[in-house]
Amino acid sequence: MSVKINLARLKKNIEELAEFGALETGGICRESFSNTDLAAKRWLMEKIRNAGLMAVRDEAGNIWGRLGSKKRSVLIGSHIDTVPEGGVFDGALGVLAGLECLETIRENKLPCNHALEMVAFADEEGAFLNFLGSRSMLGSLDADEISAAKNMNGFPLAKAMADAGLNHRRIVSARRDPSGIKAYLELHIEQGPSLESAKIPIGIVGAIVGIVSYWVTFSGEANHAGTTPMTMRRDALSGATEFYRRINAWIRSNPGGVVTIGKMDVYPGAFNIVPGSVRLALEFRHSSATRLEKMESSFLEIGNTIAEEMGLVFTADRLSWDDPVSLSNNIIGTIRQETDSLGYAYRLMDSGAGHDAQILAQKINAGMIFVPSVGGKSHCPEEKSNWCDIEKGVQLLLNSTLKLVMEYTDPK
Amino acid sequence: MSVKINLARLKKNIEELAEFGALETGGICRESFSNTDLAAKRWLMEKIRNAGLMAVRDEAGNIWGRLGSKKRSVLIGSHIDTVPEGGVFDGALGVLAGLECLETIRENKLPCNHALEMVAFADEEGAFLNFLGSRSMLGSLDADEISAAKNMNGFPLAKAMADAGLNHRRIVSARRDPSGIKAYLELHIEQGPSLESAKIPIGIVGAIVGIVSYWVTFSGEANHAGTTPMTMRRDALSGATEFYRRINAWIRSNPGGVVTIGKMDVYPGAFNIVPGSVRLALEFRHSSATRLEKMESSFLEIGNTIAEEMGLVFTADRLSWDDPVSLSNNIIGTIRQETDSLGYAYRLMDSGAGHDAQILAQKINAGMIFVPSVGGKSHCPEEKSNWCDIEKGVQLLLNSTLKLVMEYTDPK
Repeated sequence: MSVKINLARLKKNIEELAEFGALETGGICRESFSNTDLAAKRWLMEKIRNAGLMAVRDEAGNIWGRLGSKKRSVLIGSHIDTVPEGGVFDGALGVLAGLECLETIRENKLPCNHALEMVAFADEEGAFLNFLGSRSMLGSLDADEISAAKNMNGFPLAKAMADAGLNHRRIVSARRDPSGIKAYLELHIEQGPSLESAKIPIGIVGAIVGIVSYWVTFSGEANHAGTTPMTMRRDALSGATEFYRRINAWIRSNPGGVVTIGKMDVYPGAFNIVPGSVRLALEFRHSSATRLEKMESSFLEIGNTIAEEMGLVFTADRLSWDDPVSLSNNIIGTIRQETDSLGYAYRLMDSGAGHDAQILAQKINAGMIFVPSVGGKSHCPEEKSNWCDIEKGVQLLLNSTLKLVMEYTDPK
Repeated sequence: MSVKINLARLKKNIEELAEFGALETGGICRESFSNTDLAAKRWLMEKIRNAGLMAVRDEAGNIWGRLGSKKRSVLIGSHIDTVPEGGVFDGALGVLAGLECLETIRENKLPCNHALEMVAFADEEGAFLNFLGSRSMLGSLDADEISAAKNMNGFPLAKAMADAGLNHRRIVSARRDPSGIKAYLELHIEQGPSLESAKIPIGIVGAIVGIVSYWVTFSGEANHAGTTPMTMRRDALSGATEFYRRINAWIRSNPGGVVTIGKMDVYPGAFNIVPGSVRLALEFRHSSATRLEKMESSFLEIGNTIAEEMGLVFTADRLSWDDPVSLSNNIIGTIRQETDSLGYAYRLMDSGAGHDAQILAQKINAGMIFVPSVGGKSHCPEEKSNWCDIEKGVQLLLNSTLKLVMEYTDPK
């Protein structure tokens, strides 16, 4: 395969898109259905048309580009909305890489046995509703959820969509028949430090982790910090800090997955009062549902054991449980072959963050490619990937797409 | 000494005073210079007069009762203001026990070589200014501090005093010449669990602890909780929890004093972000200044060591340093003799909480007696002391007062 992507054109597109919502910090503020996001999507449709493709906005606000009239298609996508002070590459890279692949294939008049599509899914970052666009495409959103959705300022999704010329009641019409899509590919920045620190330019994603979140609480007795001797305290913080220590020791002994305590609320929370209770934000992730269950039971057991040892009370409230999602082994195989052909080093890895691919993977053969994030940073102005790595990632995306689009037989 | 205090009368007075600011919870809300506090102080002056004593309110709002016209006096005091949802006994017991002692001495026509005084100091709990009354008596408040003082609603002390018919500019006239007071005695509830759990009815206070407070911070790097592997994190909470563990281990190896972490603020504080920094409210207390310094240097060393081991940054900002205060050895000796004569078990102990005695002890021979707190509770509706313990405490206060008032020679 001697066709090369046009890195200069891709870079120019990424830089142009980065103007929409650019902050003085170097960060980007382009939240879904904001005026900035809508302007960026008009720009994107123009770009799609200028590339000689058909451009469509569906009723969920997803932007589609299409090449060819064959019934089944290979789809490349991601999103162009950002978190409030996000970076240039998260999502945008995948969408514009898709455009670059389609444009390269079109201008090189490469023969295709399937149609080619690209998509920018609406609201991946969940300003109103996590994965709004990809879930609309799969038809997995219900009307109540859509009607109830608000952004963090309390502004309703229905109103934001109306301002964008969309009718939230017609989101159902954004549904696509999954059998019409042979494969979904998404190129994304890693958002972590693993590839960069290992000096490996390509990550091939095997699974997207499941995420479980809990509020856990240790309760003891609030007491006067001056008059209560150390030996007579039931300090809730002794349980909370020991919990942190033991769950971290557990995961060192049982490597795989991650566990985080992102918050510790101490009550009543004064210099001169021994803590009566402490509430911890506990979150853990793993790509295996069995291991996720094992983590859950182990952490709850650790909490109960500590409470018993220390004379405290332990309670745990599960807030969410999102199952891990495995990507298609056939597509992973195709991407690995193409990576080998290109001579790139790669790592098979899990994605620790969520992506539209995890929604599509429920009904469509899906694959993901990662490129390294400098310093592992994302969702911040410092978010960056090196152009030499991006070039490899997009070339691999093109070659994998061509391979899939050439195949007559469906691997599904 | 065969004169006995009148427990029934004291109990009735405590119950009457508890009506002022009584809450449905059983707690008391009688903040300094509130209408409730002013009404309670009018009631107290009436009680003092009815006991045949001279009643005076000074320019700081302190209420004085006096028996006899001799130049030097023995003074018994405490306060009757409470924290926002406080209890029946904190402060009130000491003031009404003083009244009971003076009334008993007067009605038994006991001979005295000195005058006797009782006092209810204004704003011990610091609604506007910690120890306002006792510091005014010692002349240790300055005009700027008085002018700037506000309560937690932002209401100025000057205005509250004006509403009470007092002029904050005349607080200086509340100053007393310390040489006119031979001794100061204060009876108070322990506010901790030590006496009750040891089944000892009397505590004799040797010193009031010094208190040091710090904000200490561990800083690492905030990161994505899903994409940052456990081994590549610089989680600030790892330092904060280890700090808790090591300072508690230190104080187990170096018993004496107390150390408390009452608050842990985790930043940015989200389920899906590895903590970038954690700020801890650190407070420690000891009755020895040398030991307080040792605690400080040890805790800072622990913080720095952890930061070095874990690749974090440790910073420490001292917010306050209040020296410990020793009470008078002569008065402690007198109280011990009287306790032995009465046949009561007692414990020599430090006060872990602050009291007006620590202000007066700077210039006047001072002594304090504790009675047990049920469950160690104070500053709450559950605050309680048993009447059999109160009876012993007040009898000891009377006997100690009589001893001091009989002495011709000044132990100072």
